[in-house]
Amino acid sequence: MHDDFPTPQIWMAHRVSYGETDAMGVVYYAEYFHLFERARGEYIRRCGMSYAQVEKKGIFLPVREAQCRYRSPARYDDTVLVRAAISQWGRASLRYVYEIWNEDKTTLLVTGMTQHAVTDRESRPVPVPDWLRALVVAP
Amino acid sequence: MHDDFPTPQIWMAHRVSYGETDAMGVVYYAEYFHLFERARGEYIRRCGMSYAQVEKKGIFLPVREAQCRYRSPARYDDTVLVRAAISQWGRASLRYVYEIWNEDKTTLLVTGMTQHAVTDRESRPVPVPDWLRALVVAP
Amino acid sequence: MHDDFPTPQIWMAHRVSYGETDAMGVVYYAEYFHLFERARGEYIRRCGMSYAQVEKKGIFLPVREAQCRYRSPARYDDTVLVRAAISQWGRASLRYVYEIWNEDKTTLLVTGMTQHAVTDRESRPVPVPDWLRALVVAP
Amino acid sequence: MHDDFPTPQIWMAHRVSYGETDAMGVVYYAEYFHLFERARGEYIRRCGMSYAQVEKKGIFLPVREAQCRYRSPARYDDTVLVRAAISQWGRASLRYVYEIWNEDKTTLLVTGMTQHAVTDRESRPVPVPDWLRALVVAP
Repeated sequence: MHDDFPTPQIWMAHRVSYGETDAMGVVYYAEYFHLFERARGEYIRRCGMSYAQVEKKGIFLPVREAQCRYRSPARYDDTVLVRAAISQWGRASLRYVYEIWNEDKTTLLVTGMTQHAVTDRESRPVPVPDWLRALVVAP
Repeated sequence: MHDDFPTPQIWMAHRVSYGETDAMGVVYYAEYFHLFERARGEYIRRCGMSYAQVEKKGIFLPVREAQCRYRSPARYDDTVLVRAAISQWGRASLRYVYEIWNEDKTTLLVTGMTQHAVTDRESRPVPVPDWLRALVVAP
Repeated sequence: MHDDFPTPQIWMAHRVSYGETDAMGVVYYAEYFHLFERARGEYIRRCGMSYAQVEKKGIFLPVREAQCRYRSPARYDDTVLVRAAISQWGRASLRYVYEIWNEDKTTLLVTGMTQHAVTDRESRPVPVPDWLRALVVAP
Repeated sequence: MHDDFPTPQIWMAHRVSYGETDAMGVVYYAEYFHLFERARGEYIRRCGMSYAQVEKKGIFLPVREAQCRYRSPARYDDTVLVRAAISQWGRASLRYVYEIWNEDKTTLLVTGMTQHAVTDRESRPVPVPDWLRALVVAP
């Protein structure tokens, strides 16, 4: 795809379970934020370090804002493809963006973003560590 | 409170369960969207008709966009207070806004909004029915 | 009701949200365990101490086994009534039992139980403290 | 492993997300039932037909009973391995059993089972169809 989604980026496949659907027969709107979380975990892991390891180094990335636009519903048993990337770095923050596509990438189902603070163990904002930035910029 | 939160508005109390928390010891970010849904259900119910009844009349309000800002975390066993109101009406859409406060209303924990389409059973957009508008404007 | 459900017991009302339902149009089977958790939290609270306070005193009640029988489904917007009690005390364990009824208590929807260890902060089994037993036996 | 877990059987890997954990730092007890559902979906799929297709043929497998024993906790970012099989066939019912192991299969974390009715679209019990039985017995 010729597009302007930030790089590096990752794609992650996900099969929709019954537990993610609601009585409308589609994926419940809050569930996409679980998918976003899985995707950003996968992103950092493919950069070479799991988010669990990031936390062990004393760095935490709590969500400060989350947003999602719903274009087309996903249903039980669908395989959806989640695309994720870091789109922006602040002094003590960063932003992930997401897209969710149907299996053959012909329909964009959902777009979204999460804004994160960078903090220490006591939830105090800290500048983005160089090692974190380096990890992502050149994965 | 002297504030500009839209009226009519409702307040709904909610006790945080273990199942809503995560390994950070706080309410998981996606859970607030469940609270928003509970609050807008309560809102329409206090206007005189449950959302289940709205659906039975052939009107559906699927979420088109959702957004949440996280200011301060809620924890297990906290009682939080969710405030909700409809802030805007479109021709075939409406918008809810939300705030979540701690029990004594001294700390604003979360703000958010959800944008809804107004559709028929086949997911086709329809103009906001007069009875729905009337229900809410003068509850 | 003339029945043999253990005493003391509590009843807790719960309104079914969209987020608890699945594509079958009924409450998803795992959601009842969230309700069980809410009910046992309410139980201990009505005995005079929240589970959060129990934990602060260094006592934890992790679930060792959970079981649920599904007799009749609950649906969106239903008010269900959850009944809970402690049915059994071991040396370092206790068991909760649950029933979930429809709003007018004419239909039993679900029965279940959870078996809990009594542990200290390091997850080591400890005898049931006298204060915990006293709390519940004569609430 | 020399063991008596029924065959045919499947193994499914699952990465634990933040959204599945609770304030104790471990996977919340109700989440394992979501994993069981994913595993039985995967089981039937590997037999050659997705559960979505089973439903399209007019056969439904609602859960009548669910049970889980918790031996050792799973934590954020752990990869767990879910093993599933059908252990028993009734005239109009079937039973799945499950085990969840840590990544290197040295620690059994969880065991469980789900009992299912076999019904038509109107939730009436029907005998297990031959095609369903054949699908599973010789995958």
